[in-house]
Amino acid sequence: MTDEPRIIRKKTGNFLEDFRPGQVFRHKGGKTITEGLFTTFTDFSMATNPLCKNARYAEAYGYAGLVCPPGLVMLVAFSQTVEDISENARANLEYIDMRFGTPVYVGDTLEVETKVLGVRPSSSRPNLGIVHVQSTARKEVGSESESVVMTWQRKVQVYKDDESVEVEGFQVDPDPVPCEPWIPAHSAGTDYKALAHLSSPDSYFEDLEPGTVIEHSRGRTVTDEHIHLTGILDNTSQVHCNRFMIGLNPSRYVGGELIVFGGIPFVLCLGLSGPDVADNALGDVVYTTGRHTAPLQAGDTVFAATEILAKRDCPGRPDLGHVDTRLLGHKFVADEGAQHPDAPAGWKKVRIFELERTLAVKRRDHYA
Amino acid sequence: MTDEPRIIRKKTGNFLEDFRPGQVFRHKGGKTITEGLFTTFTDFSMATNPLCKNARYAEAYGYAGLVCPPGLVMLVAFSQTVEDISENARANLEYIDMRFGTPVYVGDTLEVETKVLGVRPSSSRPNLGIVHVQSTARKEVGSESESVVMTWQRKVQVYKDDESVEVEGFQVDPDPVPCEPWIPAHSAGTDYKALAHLSSPDSYFEDLEPGTVIEHSRGRTVTDEHIHLTGILDNTSQVHCNRFMIGLNPSRYVGGELIVFGGIPFVLCLGLSGPDVADNALGDVVYTTGRHTAPLQAGDTVFAATEILAKRDCPGRPDLGHVDTRLLGHKFVADEGAQHPDAPAGWKKVRIFELERTLAVKRRDHYA
Amino acid sequence: MTDEPRIIRKKTGNFLEDFRPGQVFRHKGGKTITEGLFTTFTDFSMATNPLCKNARYAEAYGYAGLVCPPGLVMLVAFSQTVEDISENARANLEYIDMRFGTPVYVGDTLEVETKVLGVRPSSSRPNLGIVHVQSTARKEVGSESESVVMTWQRKVQVYKDDESVEVEGFQVDPDPVPCEPWIPAHSAGTDYKALAHLSSPDSYFEDLEPGTVIEHSRGRTVTDEHIHLTGILDNTSQVHCNRFMIGLNPSRYVGGELIVFGGIPFVLCLGLSGPDVADNALGDVVYTTGRHTAPLQAGDTVFAATEILAKRDCPGRPDLGHVDTRLLGHKFVADEGAQHPDAPAGWKKVRIFELERTLAVKRRDHYA
Repeated sequence: MTDEPRIIRKKTGNFLEDFRPGQVFRHKGGKTITEGLFTTFTDFSMATNPLCKNARYAEAYGYAGLVCPPGLVMLVAFSQTVEDISENARANLEYIDMRFGTPVYVGDTLEVETKVLGVRPSSSRPNLGIVHVQSTARKEVGSESESVVMTWQRKVQVYKDDESVEVEGFQVDPDPVPCEPWIPAHSAGTDYKALAHLSSPDSYFEDLEPGTVIEHSRGRTVTDEHIHLTGILDNTSQVHCNRFMIGLNPSRYVGGELIVFGGIPFVLCLGLSGPDVADNALGDVVYTTGRHTAPLQAGDTVFAATEILAKRDCPGRPDLGHVDTRLLGHKFVADEGAQHPDAPAGWKKVRIFELERTLAVKRRDHYA
Repeated sequence: MTDEPRIIRKKTGNFLEDFRPGQVFRHKGGKTITEGLFTTFTDFSMATNPLCKNARYAEAYGYAGLVCPPGLVMLVAFSQTVEDISENARANLEYIDMRFGTPVYVGDTLEVETKVLGVRPSSSRPNLGIVHVQSTARKEVGSESESVVMTWQRKVQVYKDDESVEVEGFQVDPDPVPCEPWIPAHSAGTDYKALAHLSSPDSYFEDLEPGTVIEHSRGRTVTDEHIHLTGILDNTSQVHCNRFMIGLNPSRYVGGELIVFGGIPFVLCLGLSGPDVADNALGDVVYTTGRHTAPLQAGDTVFAATEILAKRDCPGRPDLGHVDTRLLGHKFVADEGAQHPDAPAGWKKVRIFELERTLAVKRRDHYA
Repeated sequence: MTDEPRIIRKKTGNFLEDFRPGQVFRHKGGKTITEGLFTTFTDFSMATNPLCKNARYAEAYGYAGLVCPPGLVMLVAFSQTVEDISENARANLEYIDMRFGTPVYVGDTLEVETKVLGVRPSSSRPNLGIVHVQSTARKEVGSESESVVMTWQRKVQVYKDDESVEVEGFQVDPDPVPCEPWIPAHSAGTDYKALAHLSSPDSYFEDLEPGTVIEHSRGRTVTDEHIHLTGILDNTSQVHCNRFMIGLNPSRYVGGELIVFGGIPFVLCLGLSGPDVADNALGDVVYTTGRHTAPLQAGDTVFAATEILAKRDCPGRPDLGHVDTRLLGHKFVADEGAQHPDAPAGWKKVRIFELERTLAVKRRDHYA
């Protein structure tokens, strides 16, 4: 060729000015849960519930096999929405009404669609605004047994492509999306007591006391493994994996360096809380609201605590109870010479994550 | 024992003086593709074609399940040849006539053999020379359904064990190895349009225009994850994983530190090009030639572009067309104070990879 | 809530003063071996025996499929004991009489229990003592085909929770635990020779000569991947993953920074020895004793050697022989200006691991 080739640079993802009221994105790809993905994320997250560790236990409880924990379902489903919704985001602001439905097993294929509920341009920052969406993940799409595995809303701060474009805000109603956790019936014929040593002995409904905060004992340092983890989720956001791009314009990006995908501290906090509050849960019922309150970067160590807010009977299920909790994640940031009441000398405790979380928890008198 | 034990240090791999004309290596090991390997590499590579992401989609198209993308087949097959051919290599020089055959699925076991086609001692560097080989990977070896999944030639620069040995060059002909991609027939009974939202909307045969270069929008920073990735491929080359060895004699090794296995940027460039040119491909037909033009090291961010060279009908398949492309990989290297036309100030764009690549691409009028 | 919530900090794991003679822990969780876990650890370890690489080979030999190598079984089983036994340990001191039984395949669920055999308080360090335990891992627990896959003893140095507590030592007998490796019969109908190219040609029983030391040719640099690897094993010990905790009190921890979980160099040494001594083994019969002799940290490169101690017939199996070996792991530590006889100038060779290991090895005259 003697002619110079014509250069094409496609726009990737949508910008603030691209979203329309009620617009529906059927996201690309879809993702089949392999045993590779299952293990990488279930185990990475420090999840301890035997339902996601021990097939013998899961099957005795009435599941078809190892159960994908809510954190894994969330990571896979959420990541599919990134290209269309948040590839050009600055920060994820809020998770709202996140609910879980049909259990997800290895071999299931998840596909996700998202409806645009609202846009609100920033009054103070002309190049930014908030996008509000509702997403739903289904399995066995197109078949008679198609079912919802998860649905949620989120608000995310998205850049404009062209700062000079005037963007008009809007807000529409979310769709009603039936999505209740499927929990296997308590079976008189199952010897649950013979399995009780496999989960923690002190995290039954009877043990969780409103008005207490459990500071989970373990921490986990996140390395630059996060780049790889985020990549294998098909999360295409460049702020998690393109260090060159960040380096060219650090002030544009939260923290000025690669930021860990929020899904990582999300599932890690779920996992760290496991032995104390989730080992004997048969389902995460709803995450009413949640948010990342500070960025996480490679090298940070994540800790978590759970506040027990309230508990109550679970209608029709005398073997279970509902427990409302607040899951809190934090890290420590060096603060030389300072002494804070809740941190070692020279360190400041910084909250990174919070999630209002309702669990369906086994009663000891039925299971142990 | 009062006697001192006798020390044995085995020679590993072959050196320039060991290769014989027409010699055939049946490589050790073989490798069964597990779901762990599938996910790690398919997803690491940022591959986006739903054939390797979404089992529902792959099965609707007529495949037996998730399809191993060409990059994964290449990594697994190539790595099996390393011990015999390139454990003592300085650099891989060229890939030639790399072709793909029967689809590879999770559970398949790949076994590889290699024929020595040529040796050419270096005229300027007495301790080095070029080895030219032809390798073929098969599955279901020894059974009636044994078939070729991939065949390729490569040239690689290999060290002598004993610099004083005189090595005579030779060249023999490659074997004819039938290897055509198996592509499922277009089926009138399949509702392809109902699946079209799962792949990118603008990468059909009709969209790919000769004379254009598509600069793929994403980049990916490679971390020292490469050591782990290369290891789990059974690639035994020490230049990718033995930092102590490199440190003792850095000048012997390209770049003077651990070098990223070429297969990593190879599949990453394939993956980065995915949304723009490969999402609607049903097969990578041939890589006529390819090479690594600069080393990659941990910390580098990989970018890619695809030049569309030509396109034409695909005989007997009105639903497909063949597209000849050139896949280019690059990174940016700091060049303080300089201003290059195709790089940000202070940076120089360095090409790391190029691959002549022919794809069999769906026509929109048949599929969307 | 107007009341301040009550803070709960649970004790995790046991301390020196908590262990009782003959006490039995049935450990939490259990773990199903997925293809993800299989690949990550089998391949990470550089294992080369085709039984764990090539399903065609494993099945021809009479196994049900890819065989979990002993290192993987050990990692999964051992990690389950950490929370109860060594979450509050300073260092693992010794492995004793580690034996392998029924083969483990992908899909098997391992569950582990541990009996406390002894406690010995330190005479010199009032906050420490040695705990001696016997652990046994089983699969298909609770079914008719329940069987032992591995049993072992270990001694571990554990902290006291309260240094002022007086701890009385004790020692009880281990239980007899039948556990012999299951090795498929040599079958006259199998064409083993047709598979012989898949394993190394010079590691048959006939090749292994008592009185020799084989210095394995490869090394492997361990990165901070170890944090992730240890996590996905459900190993809860904080000294492998909580950098913040170590940083607050480095002198309390061996090496003063995150220490690599001993299982990592353990399996890596097994893997590095593979091509020379284990490619033609059909079983690891017993590890009589083993220990970590220096800590490993991210950035270190691991090397290994095997001393051939003795060999003898294998009763009832003319196709096999038993080989007693000593597996040695080492790394090099900078020692500026020094010249040691077995290390490059400026480096000192430091032994990190040793394991008395008996293998059941194929005889060439029956298999190749």
